[in-house]
This record gives sequence, structure tokens and C-alpha cells, in this order.
Amino acid sequence: SVAAPAIAAEPTVQWRLTSSFPKSLDTIYGAGETLAKRVSDITEGKFQIKVYAAGEIVPGLQALDAVQQGTVQLCHTAGYYYVGKNKAFAFDAALPFGLTSRQQAAWMYFGGGMQLMRDFYREFNVINFPGGNTGAQMGGWFRKEVKSLADVKGLKMRIPGIGGEVWARLGAVPQTLAGGDIYPALEKGTIDAAEWVGPYDDEKLGFYKVAKHYYYPGFWEPGPQLSFLVNAAEWAKLPKHFQAAFEAAAAEANITMQAEYDAKNPLALAKLLQNQVKLLRYPTDLLKAGQTAAFAIYEEEAAKNPAFKKIYTEWKKFRSLEHAWFNLAETQLESFMYSNKVK
Amino acid sequence: SVAAPAIAAEPTVQWRLTSSFPKSLDTIYGAGETLAKRVSDITEGKFQIKVYAAGEIVPGLQALDAVQQGTVQLCHTAGYYYVGKNKAFAFDAALPFGLTSRQQAAWMYFGGGMQLMRDFYREFNVINFPGGNTGAQMGGWFRKEVKSLADVKGLKMRIPGIGGEVWARLGAVPQTLAGGDIYPALEKGTIDAAEWVGPYDDEKLGFYKVAKHYYYPGFWEPGPQLSFLVNAAEWAKLPKHFQAAFEAAAAEANITMQAEYDAKNPLALAKLLQNQVKLLRYPTDLLKAGQTAAFAIYEEEAAKNPAFKKIYTEWKKFRSLEHAWFNLAETQLESFMYSNKVK
Repeated sequence: SVAAPAIAAEPTVQWRLTSSFPKSLDTIYGAGETLAKRVSDITEGKFQIKVYAAGEIVPGLQALDAVQQGTVQLCHTAGYYYVGKNKAFAFDAALPFGLTSRQQAAWMYFGGGMQLMRDFYREFNVINFPGGNTGAQMGGWFRKEVKSLADVKGLKMRIPGIGGEVWARLGAVPQTLAGGDIYPALEKGTIDAAEWVGPYDDEKLGFYKVAKHYYYPGFWEPGPQLSFLVNAAEWAKLPKHFQAAFEAAAAEANITMQAEYDAKNPLALAKLLQNQVKLLRYPTDLLKAGQTAAFAIYEEEAAKNPAFKKIYTEWKKFRSLEHAWFNLAETQLESFMYSNKVK
Repeated sequence: SVAAPAIAAEPTVQWRLTSSFPKSLDTIYGAGETLAKRVSDITEGKFQIKVYAAGEIVPGLQALDAVQQGTVQLCHTAGYYYVGKNKAFAFDAALPFGLTSRQQAAWMYFGGGMQLMRDFYREFNVINFPGGNTGAQMGGWFRKEVKSLADVKGLKMRIPGIGGEVWARLGAVPQTLAGGDIYPALEKGTIDAAEWVGPYDDEKLGFYKVAKHYYYPGFWEPGPQLSFLVNAAEWAKLPKHFQAAFEAAAAEANITMQAEYDAKNPLALAKLLQNQVKLLRYPTDLLKAGQTAAFAIYEEEAAKNPAFKKIYTEWKKFRSLEHAWFNLAETQLESFMYSNKVK
């Protein structure tokens, strides 16, 4: 018999992706795997991306640094994790009372946002691609009811980032706690409230057992976008058709991650409601004070941070146009459909 | 000198896509070109799709038949164009008071909708892929104000499909007119009202010059999805990695077409408002009667059409869960943001 020829089926490109997320946040984490599988299928395994959970290579919040330094070729993360470096990172994810999921996609793909963010990321040696969205998040779990803005004074709430800054201006004392530390702190009363994501992820952590008041909306995250951040030098080395495969797969992960949350959250919400969870809308005076505080933060930041100002000036115009349009057909139809019950 | 070797760079697969849309509907039509360009770039030109506008190969509303018969390999169309064959086609696009754009994507990708629709399309020798969405459409242009449901009686309105059936039950006389025939009919008063798409497409046709009342929301199209329909035998012949390239590119076209409308509609709306257009919300009694009529149509159809019933039973459960969830974080935040003005 004749020996089969030894054809080397070695992949020509092998990348490592570090995720900012643990596998337990399966919907967000899964966007990295969606990208990796699709790119491999398209290229017949010649372009392989191996996905690592937060902590396997570097901690979740060091994903950007790992890409910038070339430790890995890319990461899956949320821009607003890096507002400590520069508040302008938030435009790649979400800002309080900013853009919804669809508006963020419109801004990135057709509203000039992609170019602005790529200009910004360039100094970090990174090229960004939208890579998923959770949609508007819930407002979090409270041990006691918040009847008005006055009840916020002194409230210890787990909420990081610019959202935390907004709550601080309302009188709260924001806390930064990792996911696993929230439940015991809520249970003991070390904190009074905590925000996480939405019904699907919140239900798994069991917050409803120790804090029954589930508030909406999470006004600091109207449509938080996730991102794939790729090391610029590694990107430049890719053959053009691998770049094309990556871009298409990233866009697919962008829409399918949102769709997955949109399919899972309603089922989780129904389960939560079987556990005597009290659904409550934030009092209007709190929302108004929150929006005023958020917009003041943006103006103050723009006055002292040129990178923020450059993006903010365009983003603000875009937000204003989007909000005027979405207030018509989209929101009026939704408001009507969801409240008018037909047997 | 040595002659360069004659390497045949022939594409191995060449497909023709017939669009149901004219090039003038550039955003919708463009989804076909997005797909074609991306597939070609990924495969280094080895899988080419040539896009033809409505009428170049077959008329726009015969796109499905052309794919079914193998005249072309695929089309870009809207399922609800074929409700004359079976009302169940509407689930692949939109039904009055049904799913929004995000809910439709959730249903298709993660809610069981894809499998249900593929089972349905199988008898037409077709495999379907979501291929764009316009988002909630506007409610159309009216020569006179509609102050309540009573004003609908005898109203001649250009509105096709199930939306037209709903309006008929409200007392209107639905008309079917092609895009180019609407303006003169509105101008002469042959019709009293006409719906088209949304600000971006409506503005180009100039309806505001002959009918100043611009109503919202287009309750019969909360999130109309476009589809790529591929001949099943042609699909089966594709190499797996070409199938993968196609699927990723179709998903990309699905999100980017929506994003493009979401970026363009606000600008067009602002232009329209400079032309003394009166923006009006449909009276609540009209919306309520419309929803009741729509739901009655679905129940009646389910009682006599097994294909419709099979999909409707699942779709209805899904819609109910989605509407309960979207009524919280998403819609409450949007309603607040769009109405609370901060200087």
C-alpha cells in the first residue's frame, strides 16, 4: 500500500483572545467563542482564535493592557472598564442616559463613531470592533425601597465607573466589588444595594434571596457595547481575506450576543417573578437628578480632557438626533403595545 | 523574458441575487450588496454574488418564485410580500403589533423562529437567512388630520398586506399602489393617505409636499425583517466554508442595514420638520381598535391554516414574554430620556 502524503494541515494564524469575563457570564463570554468558531469555519481552520476566560492569562480588567503590550493578539472587553485611564473609553461602551443598543450600532457603523474611536484607540496600539451589547440593563437590587431621591443619601451601592460617579452626586456612596463578593455583602448589609446586569445574569447570582426590590431602568447603561480590541501590528499582518472574515464574524457576534440576551432575559424575568421579587421603577425625581448629574459630568470632563471633548462633541449631536427620532415610531409603539392588553 | 504562467483565477461559484427592491431604496437594496461584497472579500473572489435590482431579472414580488424555480440562486426580499400564498410568510418579516427589530432577531437566532421558518420555507425549496430590518416604520402621510377612530371610515389609504386588512376592519378602504404611483394619487386626492417606510425613504418621494400630516407609529410594522432566500439545492452544493462565509455576511447585513436606517432616519426627520410637516401620534382609540383587529385576524387564521397555527402558537408565547421584559428597562429608560430635556 502507498502511504498517504504527509500534508501539513497547520493553521497559518493562531491568535489568543483574553476575555474580560468569566465563563459564568456565558452570554457575554460566548461572543468571543462565536467569533472564534466562525473565523475558523470560514478559513477551514487556517485562522484560529483560542478564547481564554478572565484570569487565565491576565485578570479581566487588564485585557486592554495585554493587547497593547502584545501579550495576546486580542481581547473581548468593555471600553468603560478603562475610564480610569481616560473617560473617553466610555464612548466605546455606554454612558449614563446615552445611546441605546441600536443607537450605539448606528453610531459605530454609520454615525462616525467607529472612526472617532479608532483614532482614540490608536495611541493604545489597538483597533476596535463592536462585539456585542447587553441592551439596557436593570437598575439593581435594593434591600429597602427607594421612594424618592432623598432616600439615596448615604446609600451604599455597588456600582463602578461613571454610573458610580452619578450616584455619588445623588448622595450615594458607590462601592466597587467583584461579582462574587456582591451576594455576601448584600446579605450582611455591608452594602444596601447592588447593580449587576439584567434578569438572566442576576438570577444566577441569587440576589433576589437577600434584596427583594428590583429596580429599573439601569440608566447608566442604556446600551453597553462590548468590543473586540486587536493589537494593531497583529492586525496589519493578517491577509486581507482573514481581515474580512474577522470583520464579518465580529459583526455577527455583535448582533447575536444582543439577540441571545433578548431571548434569555424574558424567561429569567418570569422566573424571578415567581420568587416574590418586587419590580419597581426608579422615582422620577431620582432619574431627573441622575440625568442632570450625568450631563454635568460630561461638560466638566470635556472642559479638561481634549480626547473626551473631541468625541463628545460629535456624540452629543448624534444622541440628540437619535433621541428625537426614536421618541416617535419606535418608543410610542412599544409603550402602547406593552401596556394595552388584548385578551 | 519569461511569460507569466496563465493561472486561471476563475471564481468557482457565481450566484445571481434578485432583489425585491429598486436601487432608489438604497438602504434596503444595499443589504444585498453588503452580503455580496463581504462574501467575495472573504473568499478572495472565489464566491461571487451579483446583485440585480427589482425588474432586471424578475419583478420585485416574484423574487421568491424565481428562487424556488432556480431561475436565480437567491433573492433579497421581505417574507410578508407572499402572504397571498400563505399568511405564515409574515412571521419572517412583521405582523401588526408583533415583534420589534431586536425581538425579531432574538426570535430568529435564539427563540426558535429560525427553525420554524426553515421548516415552513422547505416546501418552497428555500433556506432563509435574516437580512436586515427597517425598525418600526412611520404611520404614513394624511391629507387631513385623523382625530379619532371615527375619521377612518371610508378613508382611502395606500397600505398593502395584513396591515391593509387591519385598516379595512377599522373602516378604511385599503389601496395597493406601487411606490411611484403614490405621489400623484395623493396629490390628486384619489387617495387620502399613504404609508411608505420612514423619514429617510419618505423624504425622497416628497410626500410632505401634498400631505402634511405625518403619523406615527406604523403599528403594522414594528420591526419588519428582510430575508435572504436561497435555493435549497444550490445551498447544499456550497462547500462548508462558503456556507460559513455566507452566514456571517448575512448576519452582518442584518445588523448593518438596521444601523444604517437608524443613522439616516433622524437626519431626514430633521429635514422634514423644516418643511412644516405636522408630526402626529395616532389617536389611542385607533391604536386600540387596530390591536384588537390584528389579534382577531391571527386567531381566525390559526383556526383555518395549520402552517400559520404551528408558528403562531410559539410566536405568541415569545411575543408575550418579550413584551413583558421590554416594558421595563428598555422602554422606561427610553421614554424618560426622550422626554426629559436637560439644557
